[in-house]
Amino acid sequence: MAELKLKLQLMHGGEIAMGPGKAELLDAIEATGSISAAARSMGMSYRRAWMLADTMNRCFAQALIETHPGGGKQSGARLTEAGKRAREAYAALVEMAQAGADGVALSALTRMLRD
Amino acid sequence: MAELKLKLQLMHGGEIAMGPGKAELLDAIEATGSISAAARSMGMSYRRAWMLADTMNRCFAQALIETHPGGGKQSGARLTEAGKRAREAYAALVEMAQAGADGVALSALTRMLRD
Repeated sequence: MAELKLKLQLMHGGEIAMGPGKAELLDAIEATGSISAAARSMGMSYRRAWMLADTMNRCFAQALIETHPGGGKQSGARLTEAGKRAREAYAALVEMAQAGADGVALSALTRMLRD
Repeated sequence: MAELKLKLQLMHGGEIAMGPGKAELLDAIEATGSISAAARSMGMSYRRAWMLADTMNRCFAQALIETHPGGGKQSGARLTEAGKRAREAYAALVEMAQAGADGVALSALTRMLRD
């Protein structure tokens, strides 16, 4: 019945360089091949998705997302090698934090909850 | 320049039994001795603070906060023994999660940020 929700945000100069929403957007861009389709799949406006992508690209030394404006097959967006590495490192970070949290303190707190 | 923000929420039957705001409220009640003063010190409405306190008291088997309505010295609120234990367990949980996160994945991600 009890569940622990963990949210990790990597801040960089007052901006969120990476967090749950941005990580999900990276996944959706990889899955759909465009920012607009990724936004739609997340129920998010194109403008909001574009701003999240722009923030990531500005916070990281190398862009995480590559866009190909214009029509035809080149249209769309995809993750760069840096984007794939950042996505993996963030997933590992969340997993490590969850593993760290999963100990005696969590058991103690969970045991105190109402049945 | 980079900083990791970690937010842990212990969910119980669709409600947040404990999280950063509720932990801060417990601290403020302990420091001020009343829900209204705690709310003021956090820039929060009395109604909101009362609802957070009520949620905690309902989610845990034993109430975390004890109120003494009425005037005089008995007026106010304080943490029960269960409240103090829950506060400590949550702090330990956050510390453990942070320690877990503080590893190679965080270094890898941080190194990728713009200088």
